[in-house]
Amino acid sequence: MHVVTGFDLGPFPDVEGYTEAAALDAADELAGFREHFVIDDPDLIYLDGNSLGRLPRDAERIVNHVMRHEWGERLIRSWNEGWWDLQLDLGDRLAPLLGASPGEVIISDSTSVNLHKLAMAAVRARPGRTRIVTDDMNFPSDVYVLEGVAEMLGAELVIVESEAADDPIDQLDRVIDDTTALVSLSHTAFKTGYTYDLARVTEMAHASGALTLWDLSHSAGAMPIDLSGSSADLAVGCTYKHLNGGPGAPAFLFVRTDLQDRLDNPIPAWWGHAEPFSFDLAYEPVQGIRRFHTGTMPILSLAAVASGISEVSAAGLPLIRSKSLGLGQFLIEQWDQHLRPLGFGLASPSEPTLRGSHICLTHPDGLPISLALIEIAKVIPDFRAPDGLRLGLSSLYTTYVEIHTAIQRLKGIVTGGFEDGFREVRLTVT
Amino acid sequence: MHVVTGFDLGPFPDVEGYTEAAALDAADELAGFREHFVIDDPDLIYLDGNSLGRLPRDAERIVNHVMRHEWGERLIRSWNEGWWDLQLDLGDRLAPLLGASPGEVIISDSTSVNLHKLAMAAVRARPGRTRIVTDDMNFPSDVYVLEGVAEMLGAELVIVESEAADDPIDQLDRVIDDTTALVSLSHTAFKTGYTYDLARVTEMAHASGALTLWDLSHSAGAMPIDLSGSSADLAVGCTYKHLNGGPGAPAFLFVRTDLQDRLDNPIPAWWGHAEPFSFDLAYEPVQGIRRFHTGTMPILSLAAVASGISEVSAAGLPLIRSKSLGLGQFLIEQWDQHLRPLGFGLASPSEPTLRGSHICLTHPDGLPISLALIEIAKVIPDFRAPDGLRLGLSSLYTTYVEIHTAIQRLKGIVTGGFEDGFREVRLTVT
Repeated sequence: MHVVTGFDLGPFPDVEGYTEAAALDAADELAGFREHFVIDDPDLIYLDGNSLGRLPRDAERIVNHVMRHEWGERLIRSWNEGWWDLQLDLGDRLAPLLGASPGEVIISDSTSVNLHKLAMAAVRARPGRTRIVTDDMNFPSDVYVLEGVAEMLGAELVIVESEAADDPIDQLDRVIDDTTALVSLSHTAFKTGYTYDLARVTEMAHASGALTLWDLSHSAGAMPIDLSGSSADLAVGCTYKHLNGGPGAPAFLFVRTDLQDRLDNPIPAWWGHAEPFSFDLAYEPVQGIRRFHTGTMPILSLAAVASGISEVSAAGLPLIRSKSLGLGQFLIEQWDQHLRPLGFGLASPSEPTLRGSHICLTHPDGLPISLALIEIAKVIPDFRAPDGLRLGLSSLYTTYVEIHTAIQRLKGIVTGGFEDGFREVRLTVT
Repeated sequence: MHVVTGFDLGPFPDVEGYTEAAALDAADELAGFREHFVIDDPDLIYLDGNSLGRLPRDAERIVNHVMRHEWGERLIRSWNEGWWDLQLDLGDRLAPLLGASPGEVIISDSTSVNLHKLAMAAVRARPGRTRIVTDDMNFPSDVYVLEGVAEMLGAELVIVESEAADDPIDQLDRVIDDTTALVSLSHTAFKTGYTYDLARVTEMAHASGALTLWDLSHSAGAMPIDLSGSSADLAVGCTYKHLNGGPGAPAFLFVRTDLQDRLDNPIPAWWGHAEPFSFDLAYEPVQGIRRFHTGTMPILSLAAVASGISEVSAAGLPLIRSKSLGLGQFLIEQWDQHLRPLGFGLASPSEPTLRGSHICLTHPDGLPISLALIEIAKVIPDFRAPDGLRLGLSSLYTTYVEIHTAIQRLKGIVTGGFEDGFREVRLTVT
């Protein structure tokens, strides 16, 4: 790749909005949390914490302790000294962040595997009902998993066209009926950040006798969630985005207490057995949330999840949400002033209550722009086909001045201050 | 727990067998590998590497590099700099140790999830056949998974009573017929170490038109395995036993090349999609082994697997197997001389070719004895109900003198040199 020198990384104190940004940072009650994360390069503006959260300093300490002391020294004894219950202990620590109770959450497997398990269980618990309802804002991988479940169980997957609709909930309302076994949606949409009213959709599903299964991947750790208060039935989500659990860290699953003993785990294995060490050939599920567990969990990755949960818990979701909305509002103002005239669109809802913790801008040259941003402008966004530039807002470490600076760098990219480099990047990807 | 002092940990140079053990260690071509592992306490004799392999020194370096550099500094960019292909790269490195080819193995999920996926795929690929055949030597968790698959697909699970039989293969032969869709067994039995003739059973299954699905958890890394040469169809196994991949490290799965595009993944998700970043709502499986992947993998735990595979590859399976058989032979001789008179039985096959890399002794007081061994005698075995004392032989770090010493410590426990402590332990567990 052509190296471009002399690109102005800022900051840009003379550009409108800087003073406001600096003042907002100075008043930020969460400012101290940034130091809890490893940030080696102060020039790098990381706007992808909604895809992979930064490394909490404490995670390094925890993982090294697990390696040297628990694996290296204690060896197999560590299974009796914490590992066996780790997925449940961490679930109990995560539960309050989801509005769930202890004993309703475990950390296990991947989001896809958990989604498969709970969707299978839910549809089988609604015999006679033939439909699973999802929408076109859902993460496509979730749609594949649901399609697999539908095929396996002879059900039909209905994909509601919500993305282009004025009110996605109205669209759902037209489809959910007494043939619906399960409604499964992303709480916050991966692309636009549109966020469903969890209670309203759950109520709608329940009115038709359907169960709900939420993917909270893009909202967990970014905003208060009230699973219990909204009577949600089932949920899954990953821990490596706003929960900062580490790359590919094990996912979580939630089953409401009163449903736990009425649903069957479709992958029954020893971790969900009532007496796993009796080594009996007959499967006898344990009572409670453990029955949704399957096999042995990857302990190094699992242990790392603790530090991200601690940071989010210490900061508190109300403050995290209000800062996230503030960052989003500021970003949208900056977009309106500096980027809209350059052909950038806004794909995220302008109404704050409908938004998650990322803002999606669009541009016909979204892919080369995002690559140029990374390689030349030291801003890391996420490109989502066909034209989305997704900018994640992580209240624990994103600053207002970073947003201000990132917008100016983005402007610098498209206004051709380094036209040569931009064309070069473009050639490599299109 | 009552602390017992003055227990003689040895070594025991005056006891018969010591000179032979020391000579065997001196001639051991693999002796140098012991230093590649973290061994902090020279008094501790670890005979449970068949449950959790020791920590390779290099694993600490790798995991810290992944944390600090790949997660901390490179952040999301690491997905394009190695993480996305890591499960396949490690699978390619593991393949030769299984007698498989590159492109036939990936590291992913847990053994149970992989077993579920491949068993579902296999039975669905044999429409009209109604039976899954396994045996009572299989790891019970595998039996639960297979029972779940059978129930889901309206098939019948047949559990052959092999453990008490003279020839387990004869028992299988009576059951496998043209109603059999799948034969799924543990290659090396978790309890006794009995090891099936992979080629012979596979040939028998194929003669009836059934597919085979092997759990290699207790043999991978401990002996040469020839999946290709024996025409095996499918296999799974864990990486944390003789492969030293770390606690709960992701498991592997093998699908023979010519079967890959004829089997469907029952949990289809984006990692198995032909174009995962097109985010298309329709699932289009990629060709090849990747199609059996599901969701995002736990990178810290996954990366750690590399070092164990490297150690086993560097040592070579022929030498690992011959030392393992030597250790087993020596242990059986020592048992015969010192422990048999004290009421210990031998549950493992005496014929070396039928044995894996652990020896199972039995004693009516197996559980308290194993606890006393750990707490007082600094020997770590594994207890398997009802009366099994499983002693794992890890050629990369177990020495002959350790076996000699462990037998004497075990003798010391049951001959009551510290009767008080033993009773105390017994009280706490029975």
